[in-house]
This record gives sequence, C-alpha cells and structure tokens, in this order.
Amino acid sequence: MLASVTLPGSAKFPVVGMVGGGQLSRMTHEAGIPLGIRFRLLADTPQDSAAQVVGDTVLGDYRDLDTLRRFAADCAVVTFDHEHVPTEHLRVLQAEGVAVRPGPDALVNAQDKGVMRAKLDAIGVPCPRHRLVADPADVTAFAAEGDGYPVVLKTVRGGYDGKGVWVVADETEAQAPFLAGVAVLAEEKVDFLRELAANVVRSPSGQAVAYPVVESVQEHGVCAEVTAPAPGLDPALANEAQELALRIAGELEITGHLAVELFQTRDGRILVNELAMRPHNSGHWSIDGAVTSQFENHLRAVLDLPLGDPRPRAKWTVMVNVLGGDYPDMYHAYLHCMARDPGLRIHMYGKDVKPGRKVGHVTVFGDDLEDVRERARHAAAYLRGTITE
Amino acid sequence: MLASVTLPGSAKFPVVGMVGGGQLSRMTHEAGIPLGIRFRLLADTPQDSAAQVVGDTVLGDYRDLDTLRRFAADCAVVTFDHEHVPTEHLRVLQAEGVAVRPGPDALVNAQDKGVMRAKLDAIGVPCPRHRLVADPADVTAFAAEGDGYPVVLKTVRGGYDGKGVWVVADETEAQAPFLAGVAVLAEEKVDFLRELAANVVRSPSGQAVAYPVVESVQEHGVCAEVTAPAPGLDPALANEAQELALRIAGELEITGHLAVELFQTRDGRILVNELAMRPHNSGHWSIDGAVTSQFENHLRAVLDLPLGDPRPRAKWTVMVNVLGGDYPDMYHAYLHCMARDPGLRIHMYGKDVKPGRKVGHVTVFGDDLEDVRERARHAAAYLRGTITE
Repeated sequence: MLASVTLPGSAKFPVVGMVGGGQLSRMTHEAGIPLGIRFRLLADTPQDSAAQVVGDTVLGDYRDLDTLRRFAADCAVVTFDHEHVPTEHLRVLQAEGVAVRPGPDALVNAQDKGVMRAKLDAIGVPCPRHRLVADPADVTAFAAEGDGYPVVLKTVRGGYDGKGVWVVADETEAQAPFLAGVAVLAEEKVDFLRELAANVVRSPSGQAVAYPVVESVQEHGVCAEVTAPAPGLDPALANEAQELALRIAGELEITGHLAVELFQTRDGRILVNELAMRPHNSGHWSIDGAVTSQFENHLRAVLDLPLGDPRPRAKWTVMVNVLGGDYPDMYHAYLHCMARDPGLRIHMYGKDVKPGRKVGHVTVFGDDLEDVRERARHAAAYLRGTITE
Repeated sequence: MLASVTLPGSAKFPVVGMVGGGQLSRMTHEAGIPLGIRFRLLADTPQDSAAQVVGDTVLGDYRDLDTLRRFAADCAVVTFDHEHVPTEHLRVLQAEGVAVRPGPDALVNAQDKGVMRAKLDAIGVPCPRHRLVADPADVTAFAAEGDGYPVVLKTVRGGYDGKGVWVVADETEAQAPFLAGVAVLAEEKVDFLRELAANVVRSPSGQAVAYPVVESVQEHGVCAEVTAPAPGLDPALANEAQELALRIAGELEITGHLAVELFQTRDGRILVNELAMRPHNSGHWSIDGAVTSQFENHLRAVLDLPLGDPRPRAKWTVMVNVLGGDYPDMYHAYLHCMARDPGLRIHMYGKDVKPGRKVGHVTVFGDDLEDVRERARHAAAYLRGTITE
C-alpha cells in the first residue's frame, strides 16, 4: 500500500478512486495501468479480488462516511464497482466537492428499482408492466390487472445475480419477498425470446460511445454467456437498443459505463429489464473483443477524457462465465485448457471457489460462431470441473 | 504490500517473483492479473514504474544475495525484467532449489556479450565479425583484419539502450571503452539494410512459439519504432530468422521470452546483433497486436504452462516509443491524442519525464500501413511535445 508515497512522472496523472474490491475493480485496475492512471482502491479486506493486485489499496467500510471522506481526499474522481454505497453519503461527498461519477442522482436509479422504473416511465422508456406492491394481496391485484400469475417480485434495493428476485406462482409464494422489510416491486413475467444488453459509456462533457448490442444468456438468475454482437439481431432493433441506452445515459446524466439489460420479446419489441452504472458482466467480452474495453472507457469517461473506439475486433466474440464447482484447483485445469486452445483468453478473479460463484470468465473470438462458442463453453466447463476431457 | 497476507482461491495459484521495477515488470504484472497469477515484485524504490501498480512489492537490492533469497522464498519461480542480477547469485539460488527462469547458464549469454558471441560461434549462428580486444592498438589490429575503421566497441557487461556501445573511427577514439575496466568486444560495423527482431518464447518442457519477425528502427541507439510484421520481408528470410531464434532458444536452453535482434544486410543475410532473455521493446506491439502478448507468454513459459497463440490480430501493427521531451505533463496531451484517434492504444510507464528517456509507447493497428504508422508517430511526437497539433 503506497498511498503515502510521492510518485514520480505521474505527478500530473490523476488518482481514480474505486469503491469495492471485486473483480470489476480488479479489471479496471488492469485497464488503468497502460493509461498511467493512479488507481486507488477501497476494499473490505486484503483478500478481496482487486486488493490482491492493486498497489494502492485502502481498507475500510464503504458504508462509513468518514472512511469514504478519507478515501476520496486525494482522488480526482471517485467511482464504484457496485451500487451499495449509501446514496446519502454520496450526496455529502458531492456537496463537499468530491467528483463522484456516476453522481448520486444518476446512481440512485441503479440502486433503487422503484426509482429506476418511475424515472424510465417519466422519460418514456419501454419497460415491463410494473408497480410497487404493498403486500401479497396487492400482488394478486397486480396479477389480475394483467394476465395473472406468475408475477416477478423484486426488492427495490440490495439485489444482484438473481438475489432479491422471485418468480411467484400464487399469493402464498408472494409472501417471501415482504419478509425483508424492503419495498417490493411487482413486474409482469415477460415472455421473451432472449435477453440482450446495450452497453454505452458517457463522459461528463456529454461524449458517448455505444458497444455493439450483445446477447446474454442467464442461468439461475446469473449471467452465463455473452455473444457479441447478438446473432441474427435485426439491425433496426440493434439501432433502437443503442439509441435507447444512449438516451437513458443522457437523460439520467450518467457518467461512466451504463449497461442496459433488455428483453427481446417474441413480438419484436425491446423492454428494459435492469440498469447497471459500472462496468458490467455483459461487457467483459470487450477486454479481448473490442478496440477499447469497457473498463478503459469507464476510466476515460469518469476522467472526462475522450472515449476510445468501442468497435469489435473480430466477427464474433463469446464470453462464458467460469462458475465455481466442486473442485477448488482451477490452476491445474489450465494445463488442459491452454494446450487444447492456444487462442483461449482466461480471466480469473483470485476468488475462493464456491459452488455457483462467479470466479472468472473465458473469452474466444473468431470468424465461426459455432467454433468460438464451443471453445469458450468447453473451457468454462472444464475449469469448473463439469467435464474432464 | 500484501506479501504476508494469506490469499483465497488463489491458494493453488503460483507466485511469480520478478526482479526489477521497470516497465517490463509493470506490463508483466498487467498480463498476470487475468491469469490469476500471484505476482511479486523486487524493486529498488516505491517510485519504480512497476512498484506503483503491483500490490505485492518487496523493496531491496537485487545485487544482495540475502535479499534475493528472502524474495525467492515463497516464489514458485523467479524471473527478471533486466539482466543485471549477478550470475553467481543466480547459481547459488538455483543450487538452493529456487526455479530461476531463464537459468544462469542461459542468462549469462544476455549478460556478457563475450560469452554470447563465443556461444553463438560454437553453435554456428551467423554474427558480425568480432573478437575480444585488449587495448586500443588491438582494436586497430582487429580493424586491419577486416575492412578497417570504423569499428563497433562494446563493454561485455552493463550496457543497454546504446550505453556501453561506441562506434570509433580511429585508435584515439578507441581509448574510451577501456576506461571502465570491463572487457571490451570489437565488432565489424555491419552495412545493414535495416534491423529486424525475431521474438520467441520457450518453456522448460521445450514448447516454443515464434512471433512474426518485426522491423525495428533505432535512433541514437534507442529503439524508436517497431512494425509487425516486417514490411516486405522475404518469407524465406522471415522463416530463417524465426528458425534461428528458435534454435538459439533451444541450444541455450532459454526459458521465457527471447528477443533476437538482427541485422538484415544489403546482400540478403541476417546476422545476430544482440540477445535479450526477457520481454523486449521489440515485442511491445504484441499487447494490442497479437492474440497472446509477449508478457503473458513469458509468464506462461516460466510457469511451464502451455503457450498462447502468438499470431497477429491485425494486418499491420506499429509501436512507437514515447520519449521524454521538454514538457513534463503528458497527461494533458491525452486530450488531443485520444480525441484525434479513438483507436490509439496508449501505454505509459509512470516514469519521470527526462529528455530522451523511454516513458511509454503507443500502438496502432489496421489494414493500411501508412495510415497506421502516421497515427502512431503523430501520437508519440505529440506526447513528447515535438509537435503541437
């Protein structure tokens, strides 16, 4: 931890502070090294994914205002690898002159699904039918206003990777979400063809770039696989998704990376599922697959530097998440995976292997979608231990 | 500095120790993050290029055996970002069971130009005419054995980036190199068409990969620009250069990255100029330009993991070094460079700007060599401050 050391050369280079020690900070640090950016991390423990590799790591609790104040003191800008920093703390920091990007007024739309839906309604963005619900009986009323059960219920704060989300079949099942004492949002269960994501990056001065729209496959509420660009997507619909994401970024005055998770319906519409205002799993493909990765462009954006080319470098890029399995030694699996496929790009996060936990991802790019997809899936399954040859 | 912390997940992931805090370690750390490799650095000061960004940095003197011993204690393998660790220390470490890669018997060929020339002679590798010389009169005798003065003189140890190399026109000028008290090697001044570099990577189990042969342009003894692949190079000569580099790597039992700097003579031959057994400036293009960078393949090699695909991702990739100029604030220049060229790849090393010092490099790739070269040269010149628009 070199926080107190005076660095050379980089005297004029700004310090970017990133709150949260997960893999998004880890990969943002990686992207910042070539830019000469001075990267400072606020992590919970030295074992955190990013804390293992970042030189300038501060340990502390992101829920504590004074910790945030001390962390931000020498930073040109503060940004985030998750949405869990209390909105009120961010407002205080901003009032005290800290450049918080994205700012609290934007970020609250990624923190609170009720606020997000109300804002998207106000600016005319197509969403699944939804409203806040008071109790299980109110869920039944919401169901009756549409096509009935099943209904999707979400706690408005605190969810991620399928946590805080329920698909309920009746009023009895609808009881569970209310036990947490958090406001609950009801949404229609959309009959979607597939899920898409439109990733854009916007800078404080208003410049924005759009990555190609990708196809995202979820399993058990967790992102499993992303294909860039989304195969067979009507160019008009792709364009509509990019424009929608750029409009949301502009209307909400988002700075940095914005992921707009979308449902593509069977009748050819797109509906906004979720927003994330940080580098996002649906953009990991861009490290190996785009001229400028989402992580580098997030850094450029929060520093208000001109943004980099978001275009893909290959016809197809497929990213598959590596989830933890029963076998903890993924390093040993490198021998087989690397020997089988010299073009495989491996990204591991330094995390303990626990069943179902995201511990890394692999990426493959090339001209033949089936080949690229098979290679990426094979490597992810082998690393997990699901297959042994 | 987290050296004493028990890391999770990565329990089975090996620690790679790299000696030397320069930009080569900085970029190797960057390449190790996605592999989940635990990277440990031995640096002189916290201000060193790599020490600014590596979490696990040990400060100490690489010339001190006990410092090296302590550094190596928890490392699966020790490797280097320069050739200056005393050979005798490496022999002791190796005898004590440390995996030193490349090993001292290989590395001495990059440390001592006299040893290197003798070894290359012994295995029949074409070199410029050369021999050790005892004093200025002996240099005149060496000149008379060939085409006369000018003659190239090199101290056998301690040179880099043009330091320790003289081109002398007569016996009076030939006095300077002998003042250092180091053995001096005389070489014919080769009438070369251009300089090439053949970069290969070899693992302890003998697997090897060859990058495309590149063209390297030197200015004042310092690498200025590298084009991959070397434009207009006869495929037979390219093949000969790759085979030569692979043969040297095998015969010298080199592990890790080997750069073979070559002269392409006007009569169509290639002669070996220098060897470097570490990631090398002539391979920096591979970060953005190849499927697997020289840094990642160096890590894979020293860990005896299967090597990654060394093939280029674009038709042309041009890397231009950013040298220090009179203006210390290169960050400000980002605004122009990034806005002018969204495809520009910037790599800064966090070093103090001093006139002529390598402080970074830029890379551009694409289909049109003239366009790619112009963009890379423009960005490097603008960052240096040589041009202002």
